Amino acid sequence: MILGKVTGSIVSTRKQENLIGSKFMVVEPLEKNKEKFIAVDMIGAGIGETVLVATGSAARVGCGMNEAPIDAAIVGIVDEGQEGVIK
Amino acid sequence: MILGKVTGSIVSTRKQENLIGSKFMVVEPLEKNKEKFIAVDMIGAGIGETVLVATGSAARVGCGMNEAPIDAAIVGIVDEGQEGVIK
Amino acid sequence: MILGKVTGSIVSTRKQENLIGSKFMVVEPLEKNKEKFIAVDMIGAGIGETVLVATGSAARVGCGMNEAPIDAAIVGIVDEGQEGVIK
Amino acid sequence: MILGKVTGSIVSTRKQENLIGSKFMVVEPLEKNKEKFIAVDMIGAGIGETVLVATGSAARVGCGMNEAPIDAAIVGIVDEGQEGVIK
Amino acid sequence: MILGKVTGSIVSTRKQENLIGSKFMVVEPLEKNKEKFIAVDMIGAGIGETVLVATGSAARVGCGMNEAPIDAAIVGIVDEGQEGVIK
Repeated sequence: MILGKVTGSIVSTRKQENLIGSKFMVVEPLEKNKEKFIAVDMIGAGIGETVLVATGSAARVGCGMNEAPIDAAIVGIVDEGQEGVIK
Repeated sequence: MILGKVTGSIVSTRKQENLIGSKFMVVEPLEKNKEKFIAVDMIGAGIGETVLVATGSAARVGCGMNEAPIDAAIVGIVDEGQEGVIK
Repeated sequence: MILGKVTGSIVSTRKQENLIGSKFMVVEPLEKNKEKFIAVDMIGAGIGETVLVATGSAARVGCGMNEAPIDAAIVGIVDEGQEGVIK
Repeated sequence: MILGKVTGSIVSTRKQENLIGSKFMVVEPLEKNKEKFIAVDMIGAGIGETVLVATGSAARVGCGMNEAPIDAAIVGIVDEGQEGVIK
Repeated sequence: MILGKVTGSIVSTRKQENLIGSKFMVVEPLEKNKEKFIAVDMIGAGIGETVLVATGSAARVGCGMNEAPIDAAIVGIVDEGQEGVIK
């Protein structure tokens, strides 16, 4: 899994029907060389929080969303004061 | 998921039979370091639009196309004025 | 999916039994920064042709080869005169 | 699979329910150009140990955790004195 | 799939139980920019041989090892004299 910071969210009014209700968050990986991406929020993460993101089929099957086109999901909020472990 | 801009489309007359009817769009990721790729359009995206793309098995299983060789699908059109969130 | 050019083929006499009969083609992605890889040909692609390649489980499940260790498959031949769309 | 060194662990109190009980370890790949990531420990690995990490659906399905959003798992501890094989 | 050269093997005495009996080989991709990784040998490959490696779920499901945490498998030995096709 990847550690990242939630830096924003996006709105998509016109989308595949199984994505209705999903919240699309912009995640910036803590590792400097990795690029921002969009992850669906599964746990109520807020902007500025450091989160744990699952990618690939884990984001879909592991979150009980097998029928939705989701390839990245926020699945944990990292407790405060731990960002240093990844740097 | 990845945010990208639709920059064109390609035609493949000779293709695997489960791809018949699919529209192949060229997507340029908003993130500068990522390269263009081909995604199947699931929602009627047009050239110039900013889209949300699901990759891997999410593109196939999550779009009800389990039997087709699709590894990237356009699953949302991003509402206007939001490109700045990823830059 | 990835667009690439077929630049050759390889022979593997000793291989996993579910690969018997597969044709292994060398594919050079049109995007300059991506590296050559091997894809199984599903549609009779020839050397020099520009092809559409599906990767990951799409190459296997989407081509009805669920039981074979295939992670990349040529699933379309791009009609002539379209290479410019990806460059 | 990837060889890496366990350099720390992180705590996430608020997480997807199928992750409860999982230990999140920080893994630094032995290959210099790859970046640190988080893997769930399946075998009791300790900080400083060189481990074998499975990624993608192998981490989830291959470890009997099909319903959890896990995309990387520590599945082996490399016997001492072998780090040189990867360098 | 990836072409690579087998450069060594590693031993992991303490490992996930479904990996017992697996041989872990170090594979160096022929493409210069890709990094070494570990693949499970399915066909009796030896050090120095050029091999075909399947990655992702293809390595597991395609080799009848669905329940094992394997994300890369050696599935073919490339016949001699063909390394030039990838360079």
